[in-house]
Amino acid sequence: MAVAVSPLAPKSVPAMPPIAGVKLATAAAGIKYANRTDVLLALLAPGTTVAGVFTKSKCPSAPVEWCRAILKRGKARALVVNSGNANAFTGKTGRQACQFTAKIAASAIGCKPADIFLASTGVIGEPLNANVFDGVMESMVVAAHEGPWLEAAKAIMTTDTFLKVATASAKIGKSTVTINGMAKGAGMIAPDMATMLSFIFTDAPISARALQSLLREGVMDTFNAVTIDGDTSTSDTLLAFATGAAMDTPRISSAADPRLRHFRRALNNVLANLAEQVARDGEGARKLVEIKVEGATSKASARKIAMSIANSPLVKTAIAGEDANWGRVVMAVGKAGEAADRDKLSIWFNGIRVAHKGARDPAYDEDVVSQAMKSPTISLKVAIGLGRGADRVLTCDLTKEYIAINGDYRS
Amino acid sequence: MAVAVSPLAPKSVPAMPPIAGVKLATAAAGIKYANRTDVLLALLAPGTTVAGVFTKSKCPSAPVEWCRAILKRGKARALVVNSGNANAFTGKTGRQACQFTAKIAASAIGCKPADIFLASTGVIGEPLNANVFDGVMESMVVAAHEGPWLEAAKAIMTTDTFLKVATASAKIGKSTVTINGMAKGAGMIAPDMATMLSFIFTDAPISARALQSLLREGVMDTFNAVTIDGDTSTSDTLLAFATGAAMDTPRISSAADPRLRHFRRALNNVLANLAEQVARDGEGARKLVEIKVEGATSKASARKIAMSIANSPLVKTAIAGEDANWGRVVMAVGKAGEAADRDKLSIWFNGIRVAHKGARDPAYDEDVVSQAMKSPTISLKVAIGLGRGADRVLTCDLTKEYIAINGDYRS
Repeated sequence: MAVAVSPLAPKSVPAMPPIAGVKLATAAAGIKYANRTDVLLALLAPGTTVAGVFTKSKCPSAPVEWCRAILKRGKARALVVNSGNANAFTGKTGRQACQFTAKIAASAIGCKPADIFLASTGVIGEPLNANVFDGVMESMVVAAHEGPWLEAAKAIMTTDTFLKVATASAKIGKSTVTINGMAKGAGMIAPDMATMLSFIFTDAPISARALQSLLREGVMDTFNAVTIDGDTSTSDTLLAFATGAAMDTPRISSAADPRLRHFRRALNNVLANLAEQVARDGEGARKLVEIKVEGATSKASARKIAMSIANSPLVKTAIAGEDANWGRVVMAVGKAGEAADRDKLSIWFNGIRVAHKGARDPAYDEDVVSQAMKSPTISLKVAIGLGRGADRVLTCDLTKEYIAINGDYRS
Repeated sequence: MAVAVSPLAPKSVPAMPPIAGVKLATAAAGIKYANRTDVLLALLAPGTTVAGVFTKSKCPSAPVEWCRAILKRGKARALVVNSGNANAFTGKTGRQACQFTAKIAASAIGCKPADIFLASTGVIGEPLNANVFDGVMESMVVAAHEGPWLEAAKAIMTTDTFLKVATASAKIGKSTVTINGMAKGAGMIAPDMATMLSFIFTDAPISARALQSLLREGVMDTFNAVTIDGDTSTSDTLLAFATGAAMDTPRISSAADPRLRHFRRALNNVLANLAEQVARDGEGARKLVEIKVEGATSKASARKIAMSIANSPLVKTAIAGEDANWGRVVMAVGKAGEAADRDKLSIWFNGIRVAHKGARDPAYDEDVVSQAMKSPTISLKVAIGLGRGADRVLTCDLTKEYIAINGDYRS
């Protein structure tokens, strides 16, 4: 199915610098797609640490279970990702496919199967034939090199309409380290962790435990604050790898280390950047929508209200129709189940207050608001008027194209 | 906006018998719509008892607050309903509109304002000009008579594509009583109570307390088991009125009275019938979808899983595309957060098992399933395999027409 690039795609793709200790290769194994790459191998230098956050689904995919099991060792030598088949709901066959893939990768690299992280994305419920990896793994290990970040990000796409990468650098002590990230995901995106697949690589020498803390903390207001359709995938996976290969950089073992200040900010920027790109590629999206809630009784309450608004089909279709329908926003606030007082609510669309203290703002001009709603980015602010809890989530509008894409995906 | 009648509409409309003690009148007050009725008055005989269940929204409409406040008296002399304006999020003006409407109705009828139940449906956030009722109330009181049930059901429609009525009779002792019901609602339908507006009338002599118990109990597996889009309205209202005007019928004061056996079943049938009609008129619906979950750890758990499936945009769009995409069903089971074991799940579409014990059913024939998915009614069964909890909810598919209807409603 040919789908045009999202009109919300970033205007440019950043130049991705190399990361010492990371080599990449892609291959076309013909898992589902013809004439495109569908396997990514990231080779990681000995000593690489790893952290991960996964879907909260009670029915996770086989690769999610595999990664969870090996994560506690804190070490990684490679990441193998395929697109076209999620290896989810594939029973015993799915587990065997993971074991087999890890085994052939480990034998080609010369490490243990438990050093190999796996992720799969695509159709659920179809058995994944892991034999296809056997045909490409050896040559990928040979071909892997520091350069091909954009090819890597392309190989993991499914219904994505553009590749998603981000990069940042940060000082640790006197040394500069680099963080590169990539992500895929355009539907089945909801905030129960991690949303889709995303991989972060850095040359910073950070212990697995410290990296895990940084990642858990960073995901809260980035990937976990994005929702496309409220549907949590069985496969959501976010992995971060730290090769430690940066020159002359102090080794960090605790997330509380003050020398992580820059790094933490840079990591969060990369996560936020990728998460926003995921929202910008929401299936059928024509508008990027930021929901800001303030004056709730707590941040958690503000998050729940913001998510209720962001996941409301009626709010999302109104925005698709460029209608500042704040009545539906009131509905979504009301159904969130969180403390709210109708007569204290105020609502803004792109800075224009349309409702104030529980009623239509008498000062607002429908024409001005209609004009503002034509923008490809919509900021919807709700003031609850009860406390100091504030939060922000990102979503997109709900269009006929979403239906077209998803009413037709398997065929 | 002209919308074609839902292809899922019932093939016939039942003949609605009169209910002793209930007189109906409708009027065209020009609240929003041109050339159609938009006000309903139901006059109720002295001694009529009332029960009600309302939205759980934290931002309810002014009429919901009005009804809640007067419900404890247990008495009703009239119901006034308007379509075109929900009188929700209208602040002090909204409360005043309720007081004014009740006052003019009470004065025309000769009762107290607290005997007048009110409901409004339509646009949220626009002030409701209650003066329009002043022009029509006196003549409606004069015109009210026992016959016009279908006209009544028409006057309360908004985006509904067909009128929704149901009727049943029941024995109480040796006497036969009648139950008539009507409903409206096609979007903003979710299970937090009552969903939309629905009004039940009976000539049975049942105390307000007993009626309230019957209604609360009856709504659980009927209106509360229907979801169109997961969006709970600010205005959901279900009211039941018992005039007690049936001849020679024993007076019932407790819901536990064994003489209510037939009546309870008949009431539940009327509620189930109306609730199904609401699902059949889901905005843009082309398929009526029954979700059955069995083998969950409890009925409540089964309900939560069923609702997670019923509200999943990915499941609903797949059904619109006539795709038996059980992978998305697995996803929706997983995200419900309830106990589930992937390797014990089985899934059926219209009786055909497509997945068994955590993997694709090797016996299923894609062509046979594709054929079955063309049916306008889809039964999706999920066996969790853990316990004995079972439940059933009704929903519809998610089509491009839903987007068209809701991307365009206010304009």
